Order: sequence, then C-alpha cells, then structure tokens
Amino acid sequence: MKKTAVCLSPELIHLFDLAGHTVVAVDILRATSTITTALAHGVAAIKPVADLEACRQLKQEGYLIAAERGGQKVAGFDLGNSPFSYMDEQLRGKKVALTTTNGTLTIERSRQADHLLIGAFLNISALADKIRQLDKDVIIHCAGWQGSVNLEDTLFAGALIAKLQDSFAPASDDALLAQALYEHHRQDIPGLVRLSSHAQRLAGHGIAKDIAFCLRQDEYQVVPHLENELLIK
Amino acid sequence: MKKTAVCLSPELIHLFDLAGHTVVAVDILRATSTITTALAHGVAAIKPVADLEACRQLKQEGYLIAAERGGQKVAGFDLGNSPFSYMDEQLRGKKVALTTTNGTLTIERSRQADHLLIGAFLNISALADKIRQLDKDVIIHCAGWQGSVNLEDTLFAGALIAKLQDSFAPASDDALLAQALYEHHRQDIPGLVRLSSHAQRLAGHGIAKDIAFCLRQDEYQVVPHLENELLIK
Repeated sequence: MKKTAVCLSPELIHLFDLAGHTVVAVDILRATSTITTALAHGVAAIKPVADLEACRQLKQEGYLIAAERGGQKVAGFDLGNSPFSYMDEQLRGKKVALTTTNGTLTIERSRQADHLLIGAFLNISALADKIRQLDKDVIIHCAGWQGSVNLEDTLFAGALIAKLQDSFAPASDDALLAQALYEHHRQDIPGLVRLSSHAQRLAGHGIAKDIAFCLRQDEYQVVPHLENELLIK
Repeated sequence: MKKTAVCLSPELIHLFDLAGHTVVAVDILRATSTITTALAHGVAAIKPVADLEACRQLKQEGYLIAAERGGQKVAGFDLGNSPFSYMDEQLRGKKVALTTTNGTLTIERSRQADHLLIGAFLNISALADKIRQLDKDVIIHCAGWQGSVNLEDTLFAGALIAKLQDSFAPASDDALLAQALYEHHRQDIPGLVRLSSHAQRLAGHGIAKDIAFCLRQDEYQVVPHLENELLIK
C-alpha cells in the first residue's frame, strides 16, 4: 500500500522530503478552491506568485493579475480570490497571475514534488482518481493561516485520506490526526468550518456565500497541476 | 471565559505570544511523564537542559545527569528517560539534570510564559486545578517528534481541554483539532497511542511497560513548574 502524510502548515514542510511524492496543495478558503473553479470555467492557466510586486509586473506579460491579502482583494488588481469572480465567460482562455495570503506560498513550497496537484472539496473525487493513477506516496500540504494550523484544510486532508483508504494508508501521526478530525465531524462539516478562525475572519468580510461554495463536493472534474510554472488542467 | 490554544510542535511556537499565559509543556512519551514521576517520588529538582554536553558538565555541580536520545539512555549518563528509573529511594532529595530528544527543547522554548507547568496524563487533574487557580489563558505546547506533530501529545492536549472546558474555551483551530482527536478516541486511548509512530519506535526498544504507565491518569498530584531554571513541585 502507498502512504498518505499530512503537512499541517507550510512552516513544517521542511520536515518532509517531497521528491518521489505526489503533493496536494490545499487552501480550502479559498485559493485552491478558486484555482479549481477558474480552470473549470475555462481560464487557460494560473501562475501562482508569492509576492504582490512580482504579481503586478506580470500584467506587462499579458496576464490578468489577481491578489488577495487578509481575505480581501488588493486595490489595483484585476481580480481577487473569490471563486465567483472566476465564473466569467470573459476569462475563457486567459492567463491569470495569482497571489494570496497563504495559498500561493504553500504552492511555492511544494515545488520539489514529483507531481504537484491542487486539491479542494470541489474536485475531491477527481483528485483522488488522479492520485491513484500517479501511484506514489502522497503528502497533503495544508496552507493554514499565516503559519498556524487551520480546521478547514486539516478537515479536507482527512476527507481525502478517507477517500483514498482502499489503496493508501494514513501512515503518520499527522495523517491519523486529520483522519480523526474528519471522522468526528463528517456529519456536519459546515458546522465545524463555521467555528474555524478563518471562516470567522472571512464572514467579517461578508463572504459566507464563498464559504458555502468552497465546501461543496465534486462540483468539478478538473485537477489543476503544476507544469512549467503554470497551473493547468 | 479564559482560552486554551495548542501549539502542535515546537517548530510552531514562534507563532504564539507566551507572555501573559500559562504554558503547559507536554511530552507524554516520556519526558514530562518522567519529570512528574520523579518529583512525585521525591527528586528535589530537575534542571532541563537542551544539549548533551551542557548536561554532562552539570555532574561537577552535584547533579545526577540523565540523557535520552532516540528513545534510549545515552552511554555515560546516570539515568535515562524511563519513569520507572525514577521510582528509587536513593534519588530522594537529589537534583537531576535532564536532556531528552524533544521534551527539554519544548521546555526551553516555553520560557517566556508567565507560568511554565509540566503536564502528563499522570497528573492531569492536579494540573487542571493549578491552571484554574492561575486563571490565565493557556497554551498547551506539544513536544511532538523532531518537529513533527504527534498523536499522544495532541491527544493529551485534547484531554486537558475537555477537563478545563467549564471555564476555558478552545478558542483556536489547533485547540478544536486536539479536542476532536480526543473526543473521537477517548474510549480507546491505548489503542490510538499504539498506532503512533513514536510508540512504535519505543516498542522497538522493548518499553511497552513505559507506554502503558505514561497513559495512566491521575497517578500523582504533583504539578512540576519552572522556577529559577529548575523544575520543582
């Protein structure tokens, strides 16, 4: 059996050897949910960028530029980090450069992986199928919030472990922890996520609708993956 | 209500502001279980030391010296890290300098706390009483294993949160995570801990008896705390 492990925060990723693994980057609220939504709705590619200035400069190379900090769109950018902004016919075929508070850093720190995939509840079953095809040990890399562990990403890790458990064993303590969180709360995922500190932060910005959407399962069949610095279908 | 938070690994402790808080250092297998046992059996004081050489030199200052690395006693030291070694009449009134793989580093990195307490299943009820008396927000600082999150320390954090919940609220995502782990597995704590990677490492060293002992609740009423560089009753 192959193995699953969970890195609960980008601050712990140096403890993992990513080479030889499939790594799933996860930032449920909202970067990886939004990236999945964007590619599903026809965006051609997303270039994840860690900092604002580098993102802004990509405008000159023909990218639409998107930025979120602290849960809000940054002034002067074309787009923010809400999945609903990316359900737009006018974005079909376009390339977007995206920087977010936690999600793009998590992708950045996952680059040593053999295969870097983007995970969300929105694509969880297609993601699990892709992981089975690749047939390598998996590290689920949770974005957390500014270094801290968060509930919604850990919960997703547990849900993915449950989906994979016919052929992938949760072989580390962090995986068993994520699995217990999911098993304990699987009957009321929205109820648990409402308690999370990040959901409370976002609710302050009036985006409860985003949160509800990001918890929907299998809305899309798309599994974004990194190829030549770009996230594509 | 006061609050509980959980730092799941010493690698994340820089994210917490320890000043103004009660911090509980936890390394169930075995440093904090052993420290509690030692003080309960009459050891006068334990000086936690992060590195082997500094520990060795304290021999000249009249300390007994104790060292563990990778689950085993280090050659040339008086004692290792098994609680059973400290149930010894000959240690009554003695001072011990102790260095372990994870536990003493965790204590070292908790020094900015207003009050630094040592927690274990062995003293969990007395510890909860002491925390209530101190009446400050609590950070439960888990030792983990070489930076990684582990099951037994997180489980203990959840158990302590449950014990405190009449007057302390789990107010952060890490606390809710620990609480879910505990609630999900409270009927079979030994069964869960058997799955933990550290228990499996220790079992390889033939110390299943230590593990069973470290999971016993309320064996002692002692709550070790740090005062002038020494852990005392």
